[in-house]
Amino acid sequence: MGLREACGVVGISLEDGQQGGRAAQAAPLLYYALYGLQHRGQESAGISIHDGGLLTLKGMGLVSKALPYERLSHLRGTVGIGHVRYSTTGASELLNCQPLEVSYHGGRLAIAHNGNLVNTEALRRELERRGAVFLTGTDSEIIAQLLARELRRHTPLEAIERLMGIIVGSYSLVILLDGTVYAVRDPLGIKPLCFGRVDGGYMVASESVAMDTVGGTLVDDVRPGEVVVLKDGHIERHMVCRGCPKAHCVFEYIYFARADSIIDGRLVYSVRERIGRLLAREHPVDADIVSPVPDSGITFAIGYSKESKIEYREGLMKNRYIGRTFIMPAQTTRELAVRLKMNAITENVRGQRVVLVDDSIVRGTTSRRIVDMVRGCGARAVHLRIGSPPIISPCYLGIDMPTRAELIASSPSRAEGGRGMDEICKELHADSIGYLSKRGLVEAIGIPEDELCMGCLTGVYSLEIPGERCRHAQALLSEYFSGT
Amino acid sequence: MGLREACGVVGISLEDGQQGGRAAQAAPLLYYALYGLQHRGQESAGISIHDGGLLTLKGMGLVSKALPYERLSHLRGTVGIGHVRYSTTGASELLNCQPLEVSYHGGRLAIAHNGNLVNTEALRRELERRGAVFLTGTDSEIIAQLLARELRRHTPLEAIERLMGIIVGSYSLVILLDGTVYAVRDPLGIKPLCFGRVDGGYMVASESVAMDTVGGTLVDDVRPGEVVVLKDGHIERHMVCRGCPKAHCVFEYIYFARADSIIDGRLVYSVRERIGRLLAREHPVDADIVSPVPDSGITFAIGYSKESKIEYREGLMKNRYIGRTFIMPAQTTRELAVRLKMNAITENVRGQRVVLVDDSIVRGTTSRRIVDMVRGCGARAVHLRIGSPPIISPCYLGIDMPTRAELIASSPSRAEGGRGMDEICKELHADSIGYLSKRGLVEAIGIPEDELCMGCLTGVYSLEIPGERCRHAQALLSEYFSGT
Amino acid sequence: MGLREACGVVGISLEDGQQGGRAAQAAPLLYYALYGLQHRGQESAGISIHDGGLLTLKGMGLVSKALPYERLSHLRGTVGIGHVRYSTTGASELLNCQPLEVSYHGGRLAIAHNGNLVNTEALRRELERRGAVFLTGTDSEIIAQLLARELRRHTPLEAIERLMGIIVGSYSLVILLDGTVYAVRDPLGIKPLCFGRVDGGYMVASESVAMDTVGGTLVDDVRPGEVVVLKDGHIERHMVCRGCPKAHCVFEYIYFARADSIIDGRLVYSVRERIGRLLAREHPVDADIVSPVPDSGITFAIGYSKESKIEYREGLMKNRYIGRTFIMPAQTTRELAVRLKMNAITENVRGQRVVLVDDSIVRGTTSRRIVDMVRGCGARAVHLRIGSPPIISPCYLGIDMPTRAELIASSPSRAEGGRGMDEICKELHADSIGYLSKRGLVEAIGIPEDELCMGCLTGVYSLEIPGERCRHAQALLSEYFSGT
Amino acid sequence: MGLREACGVVGISLEDGQQGGRAAQAAPLLYYALYGLQHRGQESAGISIHDGGLLTLKGMGLVSKALPYERLSHLRGTVGIGHVRYSTTGASELLNCQPLEVSYHGGRLAIAHNGNLVNTEALRRELERRGAVFLTGTDSEIIAQLLARELRRHTPLEAIERLMGIIVGSYSLVILLDGTVYAVRDPLGIKPLCFGRVDGGYMVASESVAMDTVGGTLVDDVRPGEVVVLKDGHIERHMVCRGCPKAHCVFEYIYFARADSIIDGRLVYSVRERIGRLLAREHPVDADIVSPVPDSGITFAIGYSKESKIEYREGLMKNRYIGRTFIMPAQTTRELAVRLKMNAITENVRGQRVVLVDDSIVRGTTSRRIVDMVRGCGARAVHLRIGSPPIISPCYLGIDMPTRAELIASSPSRAEGGRGMDEICKELHADSIGYLSKRGLVEAIGIPEDELCMGCLTGVYSLEIPGERCRHAQALLSEYFSGT
Repeated sequence: MGLREACGVVGISLEDGQQGGRAAQAAPLLYYALYGLQHRGQESAGISIHDGGLLTLKGMGLVSKALPYERLSHLRGTVGIGHVRYSTTGASELLNCQPLEVSYHGGRLAIAHNGNLVNTEALRRELERRGAVFLTGTDSEIIAQLLARELRRHTPLEAIERLMGIIVGSYSLVILLDGTVYAVRDPLGIKPLCFGRVDGGYMVASESVAMDTVGGTLVDDVRPGEVVVLKDGHIERHMVCRGCPKAHCVFEYIYFARADSIIDGRLVYSVRERIGRLLAREHPVDADIVSPVPDSGITFAIGYSKESKIEYREGLMKNRYIGRTFIMPAQTTRELAVRLKMNAITENVRGQRVVLVDDSIVRGTTSRRIVDMVRGCGARAVHLRIGSPPIISPCYLGIDMPTRAELIASSPSRAEGGRGMDEICKELHADSIGYLSKRGLVEAIGIPEDELCMGCLTGVYSLEIPGERCRHAQALLSEYFSGT
Repeated sequence: MGLREACGVVGISLEDGQQGGRAAQAAPLLYYALYGLQHRGQESAGISIHDGGLLTLKGMGLVSKALPYERLSHLRGTVGIGHVRYSTTGASELLNCQPLEVSYHGGRLAIAHNGNLVNTEALRRELERRGAVFLTGTDSEIIAQLLARELRRHTPLEAIERLMGIIVGSYSLVILLDGTVYAVRDPLGIKPLCFGRVDGGYMVASESVAMDTVGGTLVDDVRPGEVVVLKDGHIERHMVCRGCPKAHCVFEYIYFARADSIIDGRLVYSVRERIGRLLAREHPVDADIVSPVPDSGITFAIGYSKESKIEYREGLMKNRYIGRTFIMPAQTTRELAVRLKMNAITENVRGQRVVLVDDSIVRGTTSRRIVDMVRGCGARAVHLRIGSPPIISPCYLGIDMPTRAELIASSPSRAEGGRGMDEICKELHADSIGYLSKRGLVEAIGIPEDELCMGCLTGVYSLEIPGERCRHAQALLSEYFSGT
Repeated sequence: MGLREACGVVGISLEDGQQGGRAAQAAPLLYYALYGLQHRGQESAGISIHDGGLLTLKGMGLVSKALPYERLSHLRGTVGIGHVRYSTTGASELLNCQPLEVSYHGGRLAIAHNGNLVNTEALRRELERRGAVFLTGTDSEIIAQLLARELRRHTPLEAIERLMGIIVGSYSLVILLDGTVYAVRDPLGIKPLCFGRVDGGYMVASESVAMDTVGGTLVDDVRPGEVVVLKDGHIERHMVCRGCPKAHCVFEYIYFARADSIIDGRLVYSVRERIGRLLAREHPVDADIVSPVPDSGITFAIGYSKESKIEYREGLMKNRYIGRTFIMPAQTTRELAVRLKMNAITENVRGQRVVLVDDSIVRGTTSRRIVDMVRGCGARAVHLRIGSPPIISPCYLGIDMPTRAELIASSPSRAEGGRGMDEICKELHADSIGYLSKRGLVEAIGIPEDELCMGCLTGVYSLEIPGERCRHAQALLSEYFSGT
Repeated sequence: MGLREACGVVGISLEDGQQGGRAAQAAPLLYYALYGLQHRGQESAGISIHDGGLLTLKGMGLVSKALPYERLSHLRGTVGIGHVRYSTTGASELLNCQPLEVSYHGGRLAIAHNGNLVNTEALRRELERRGAVFLTGTDSEIIAQLLARELRRHTPLEAIERLMGIIVGSYSLVILLDGTVYAVRDPLGIKPLCFGRVDGGYMVASESVAMDTVGGTLVDDVRPGEVVVLKDGHIERHMVCRGCPKAHCVFEYIYFARADSIIDGRLVYSVRERIGRLLAREHPVDADIVSPVPDSGITFAIGYSKESKIEYREGLMKNRYIGRTFIMPAQTTRELAVRLKMNAITENVRGQRVVLVDDSIVRGTTSRRIVDMVRGCGARAVHLRIGSPPIISPCYLGIDMPTRAELIASSPSRAEGGRGMDEICKELHADSIGYLSKRGLVEAIGIPEDELCMGCLTGVYSLEIPGERCRHAQALLSEYFSGT
C-alpha cells in the first residue's frame, strides 16, 4: 500500500447520426467514463471535443469538481478524448492538466497521456537546440512537438509510427487530430489500454471499467505497439511495432487497476484472489483469522482464507471519508494519521493469531503502525502476508515511488529472504512475514515472466534507464534528429 | 441501503494541567474525534470551546473543509463539544449548523444534538405564546430556550432534569455550560451515547470509534435517562430517569453505526455477522456464491457465507469516489447512476447462482437495478437476502425516510410475508427474497425486544406520535408550562 | 476621513397587479436599490420577501457577491425589505447579516436596522432574566424579541409604538410583518429615512439615491418618531412620538451620505459646497491652489475654491481599485499604505502654496502622511482646511470611531482652538489648520442647532449614555418590564 | 468613455546586497507596483522572480486576489517582472495570464507584454511550418519562440534586436532572462514604458505611477526602439532602432493612463486640463455650469471651466462600487445600467444650461442615456463637449474597440463635422456637440503630429494593417525566415 498511480485516458468516436432525434454527443460519455477511471487520478480531469474546431474543458480535483456538468453542454461533438491525472512529475498546476491542446501547422490537436517517458531530458534538449520552447513540464508537450514536426511531411499514422520510434518509456496515448482519435500503446505494453463498443460507436480507455460505466462492451486490448484509430464511429487497427518484447506492469494487477477491470485478458479480481491462494501455499501459518488491510488487501485476504481454510474476519475498519487524496493537517502525528485512516476492531482480534494481508510494502512505516495497532488490541500473533514480492528498486515508468534508500526492502540481501527478511519482520514488529514469490506472481497473473515489467522487484528494467540494468538496448536519439 | 443518518456529537473535558510543558487542548481532540464520526453526518461540522468565554467554529461540508485546522489554534481551552450534522429537517444552511451557541442570563452556553424531538411544534407554540422568537428551525434552539428558562431558578442538573421531563423524542445531547460538559441521553436510549477516558480527562461521543481515533478507551454507555457530567477532567454520573422503558434504535446496528463501534455493549460488527448467519438459517438457498451489495452488505454477507458454507465472492465493485454525499448531475438517468456507483464483475457472477446480501430495502428502486445488473452479467439466479425486516412505516426519531407510500414494503400484507412478499420479489426481479425476521433481529442484537425501537418495522412506536400507535403514554405539555 | 458608516435599509410594497402581463416583483427593485446604498455598508447584504410565507436571501460582501442575481428569481412577491451592513459591533459573520428573519407566535417576521441602540445591555439582561436566549449579537434580535412580546396583545402599530417607548438610541428600521412593511425612524431622527413612489407602489430607504437608482421619486422624509406603513402598494403615515426633540446626525451631511442624496430636505452636495464656502470665510489664507483629499474632500474644496477665488487643482490622485473595503497585506507599512491609496501629482503642487481640504480628522495619522506626501513633492506650504469641527468624543449611535484617547482633538483645550490647535497643526506637519466652526456647520446644514446631534463634536449627547453628558433624560426600563 | 485598456508591465533589479540586515526582495516591490498599474488591467496579474531558477505566481482577478500576499514570500530574489492584463484577444483564461514562463535551450525565461502585434498570424504560420506548436493564443508565446530561436546563436541583446526586426505592432516588453531584465519598447513608441530608481536598484514600468507607489523616482522614458537592461541593480541603455518614425498612442493621454503619470515627458493631468481649455476655446457656449461625466471627464471639465469662466459644478455622481470590471446581471436594462453607474443631482442641474464634458464617444449609447438623464432632471440645455476628435476607425494596436459599423462617428462625413456632426448631436439628444479638433489634441499633448498614432481618429495607421491605409512600409517576413 502507499504507491501512487499515474493517470487514466479515454477516447470516443460516435457515428455522426441521430439518437432518438438528437445528435449523438461524446462529452457525456467521456465524462461518465472518467468517473469510472477516477481511481487512476484525482488531481485533475479534462475533456477535449472535436466539432469542426477543438474545445477543451479541464480543471483541478475530482471529475465532479473539475468538470462542472452544466458546462459540458458547450462541448458538442461526436468525437473526443478525456484524462484524469495523478502527477508523476512534481508540480501540480492547471497548466499541467490534460488533455493538452495545441495549435500546429495543420490546425489544432489534443493529447492525453498515461505513462512516463524516460528520455524526455534528451528529447527536450534536442528540441530546444532546434529553437523550441516549453510551457509545461509534461511529456505531452514533448509528444505534441515531435508529432507536429512529423505531421509536416507525414500522414498522421506515419507520424505516430515515427513518434513511437523515438520516444522511450511507458505510454498509453489518445490523440485527437482532424476529428479522429488515435489510441497508441507503447511497444512494451507497460500501461493498459483497451477498446470496446458503445452505443453508436467505439471507445478506448485505460481500463474496461470505463466501458462498463457507460454501458459499453470490451472488445479487446490495444496490443503493445498497436495504434487503434477511431473515426466516424468505426475502428481500424494498425500494428506498428511487431515483434517487440512485452513488459506489462505487474502493479496494475496488484494495486492500481480496479478489481473489476479486465487487463490484457485477465480479470484483476481473479489475479488477486489467486495471489491470495498462492500466498497461502507459499507462506502457510497456524492462525485463527485472516484479516485484510482495507481496502487494498481485501481480495488477497479472501483468497488466502479460502486456500488456508482459516476464517476470514475483518480486524481493521477503514474511515471511508479519508480518501487517497486526503491531506492531514500538518500537525497530525504519524500514529494519529494511521488511527484516523483505520481502526482495529478489538473484539475481532483480541486473543487471536491474525494473518494480516496487504498488497505491498513500500517504506514499511504504515505497516509497522498497523501491526502495532492490531497487537495493541490484544492479538496473540500478527503474521504479515504481502501480495507482491519485495520492492527493491524505484519505478521509472509511471509509478510514483520513494527513493531506493527509503524502500524497506531495497537492500538486495533483504529481498532474497534469509537474514534480510528476518530484519524486515523485526522492523515491522510482525511475528512472521511472507512476501509472494516472483514465480507465484507470474503464475497468478498468467502471463510469461518475460512479458512482464518487474523492474521494481528485480532491479532489471525493460528499458534502458541511466544507471540501471536493462533487458534490451534501444535506438539512438541523435540518429533520429540528424534527419530533421 | 439508502437510509440517511442523523448526526454525531462529542464532548471532552481535560484536566487544566500541562502536558509535556504545554497546556492540554480540547480542540484538536474534538477535531479528530469528529473525523471518527464523519459517517454520521457530512453536511456540516462544528466545535465549541470554553475558555472563560465560549468560542464556536463551524462550517458546511466535511470536517476537513468545515473546520480549517489552522483556525483551531484560536480555540484554546480544556473543555468543549463538537458536532457533525446530517440534516433531518430540510433546510441546509450555516444558520442550522451546530453546536448552537447562545447567550442567556447566566452567560453563554452551547448545545449539540443528535436525534429528533417529536413535540417541537407544541413546544415552539408554547414558547412563542410566551413571547419567544426563533431564528433557526432546529431542535437545539428549542432546547436552549427551555434550558435558559429553567436555569433562572435551578441548578444545571435540575434544569436538565426538568428539560428531560418535557421534551419528547430521541436525543443524545452534549451541553457546554460554565466550563462543564453535560452529556444527556434520552430515557428511551434511542440514539447511542457513550463515554471513555482520554489522556488527561474524559470524553463522551455518539460512538466508541471517536475514542479509538484519539487513542482513548471506552468506559461505558451513557445509560438511557442518564446525565454524565464532565468537569475538570473528571466525571460524575447522574441517573435522572429511572425505570423508563428502553427503545434502542435497531438501525444503528443494521446500518448507521460503524462496524467497529461498540453500542450498548455490543460490537456492531458481531451483530451484523450474526444477522448474516441467522439470515442463512432463516432463508437457506441452493447457490454458488454469496456476494454483498458493497459496502453496507459486506459483514452480513460474510456471516451468511460462513453459516451456509457457500463461497464468499464479490460480484459487485463500488466506485470509491462516489460517496454518500455525491450529487449526480441532474441529467443522469437512474440506470446510469447505479452503474456509476457500482459495477458487476461479470467473470465472478456469470453462470452462477448468486445470493446477494444487503442491509435493508427502502424504496426498492436501487435494489431492482442492482439485481438487473447482476443478472445482465449472466448470473443464473439472484437470491436477495436482506439483513433487516421489511420497513413498513416511517421513522419519526431521527432517520430521514421517504413517506409510507414510497416504501416498497409499506403495505401490511407485504410485510407479513406470504403473497405480499412474492410481489416484492417480483418487483425487484429477484428469484427469491428473504428478509431477516424480527425475532432474528432481536436475537442478533442480543437486547430484549421490549428494549428496542422497531417503530419503522412494526408501525408501533416507543413514543406518542400523532396519528401513529404507541407503546407508552406521556406527560402533558400544558401541565409543565402552567407552572412557568 | 476614516470614519466608518453603519448600514442602509430599504423596504418596498407594490400593488398586487400585473405589469405588462407579469406579476410585479419587489426583489429586483430591492436588489438595485441596495446597489444605490452600497456606500453605507459593504460587509453583507440581504433581502427578505413576503409571498404568503417569508423568504430571506443574504450573504457576505458587496451586493453583487452576497446576492447572486439568478437566485432572486426564487424570491417572488410584491413586498419586501433589504439591508446592507457595515458592522458596528465587532463580529462579522453570516449569522449577523440582516434582515433578521424569525418565527414568533403569529408566524414569521423580518427586521432590518440602521443605527445603534444604547440600552441593549439592559434590554438583553431584562429579557434574559425572563428566560430569553440570544443567538446573535445584533440589536435586531433584541428588537425582534421585544416586538414578539408586544404582538401577543397588541396590533402591529401599537406594538411598534410600545417598542419605541423602550428602546433608546438611533434606529431607522424596516419591519416586514404580515405582508406589510413598517418603516420606523427614532424620535430623534438620528439616522436618515425617507420614502417615495416607484412604479406600482411605494418604497422607503435610508437615502433618496436608492429611489433614483430604480427610477422612483422621493416624496418626503420619514419624520422622527414616525411610522410609515407600506401595504398593497399604498402608504399610511402615523406620527407616534410627537414633540420629541430632534437630533439629526451631522456626519451624514459631512461624510456618510452620498452627495446626491436629499436628507431631511437638504441636498447633501449643497451642504458640502456651503461648508467649503464657509470654511474659506472662516479660515482664509493666501495660497496658489485649492486641492481636495479625494474623494471625500472634493465638494468642500470646490466650495472653498469658489469662495476664495483660489484656483481649484487636483494635487492628489486616488487609486480607484483600493476601495473602502480593501485590506492591505499585514506587512504593508503605514507610509506605503497611504501611497497605495493616493499619489501626489508633483507637477501640480511643486512650488505651490496648497490649501488641502478634507472632510474630517479622526486620529490624524493619515492626514499627516498626506501632508508629508504633498510637501515631499515640493509644495511651498500646506494649509489644512477641515469641513467639520474637531471630533473630541466618541459616537455611541452608529458611527464606528476609535476611543477618545486615539482622537487627535480629544483634549478639550485643543478643540477650543488656541494653543491646542497649534499643537494639532504641528503634529500634522501643516503650515496652518482650520476646522469649520460649529456655528458654520449649523449654518451650512440649515437645521437649528438643537435639532442636530453633535455629540462627537461637543461631548454632550442627545441621549443618556452611561458616563457621558446628555441633553435629555429618559424613561426607566424597569418600569416597562414591570408590567410584563 | 467605454474604451478598454490593454495591459501594464513592470520589471525590477536590485543590488544583491542587504537592506537592514535582510536580503533585498523584488517581489513585494513588483506587487505594490502592480497596484499602481491596476487601472491598466483587472483581469489577471502575475509576477516572475529569478533566484537561480525562475518562479512565477499568477492568477485571475485584481492584484489583491490574483497574488495572495502570503505566497509572495516564496518568491525570493532581487530581480523580477510583473504584469496586469486586460485581454485584447478574446479568451480569458489562466493559461493566457502573464508573465509567460518557458524553458528554452539556455534554461528558463519569462516575458510580459503590453501591446498588440499585427503580424502574429504570419509569424505563427511560419513557426508552425517549422514544426512549432502553440499552447496559448498570446503574442507572448510567439515572442518567446522567436527569441528562443535567436538565442541559439546570438547574445540576448542581439537576439532582441533581431526580434524587433521581425515583429510588427505595439509592444512594451519586459523579458526576464539569466537574472537580467530587458525592457523593450517598440520603434514607434506606441505604448508607454519608462524607468526610474528605487531604493537599491532600478525599475521599469508602463507608467511612472508604479514608481511613485513604491517610493521610486522616474528617470526617463524608455525611448522608442530602445532596450533598457536592468542587471544587478544597475542599468544600461541600448538604442536599437534609430531614426524610426514615432507613433505615440494619443488615447494614453486622453483616457488610459492615470492622470498623475508622466508619459514621454508630459504629465497626463496637464494634457487633460489643456484639452479642456482648448475645447472651451474651440467650442464656446453660453451656459450656467460645466459638469464632468465622472470619472473620466473630470480633468477636462476643470480645464473647460477655467478657460470659459463658467462655474464648475458636479451634475452627475458616480456609484463608487460599480467598477470597470462590474458585470451587470443579464436582465438589467441598459437604462437601469446607466442609472446604477451614475445619478444626476437634480438640484444642481434643474433649470441650468449644462456643459457636459466627457473624454470620448465610442458607440454613443451611454452618452445618449446620460444626456437624457440630465435633461430628465430639468436641465434647460445639455451641451456635449468631448475631449478627443471623433473615433472613426478601429484600433489594431492594443485598444479593444467595437467594429467600425458600431462607432457612432465611423461615417467619414460625420467625422468631418458639418451635416454629419448635426446627426450625431441629434442622436445623442444634445443641444450642441463639440469634439476637440485633431490640431487641438496635438497642441494639448505637445508632441508633433507625425510622432503620434491617431489611426482610430484618421483611419491612417502608423503600421501596415491588412485592408487599412498606412504611413510607412515594412520588412518582409519571408526574408527573415528564409535565413533560419
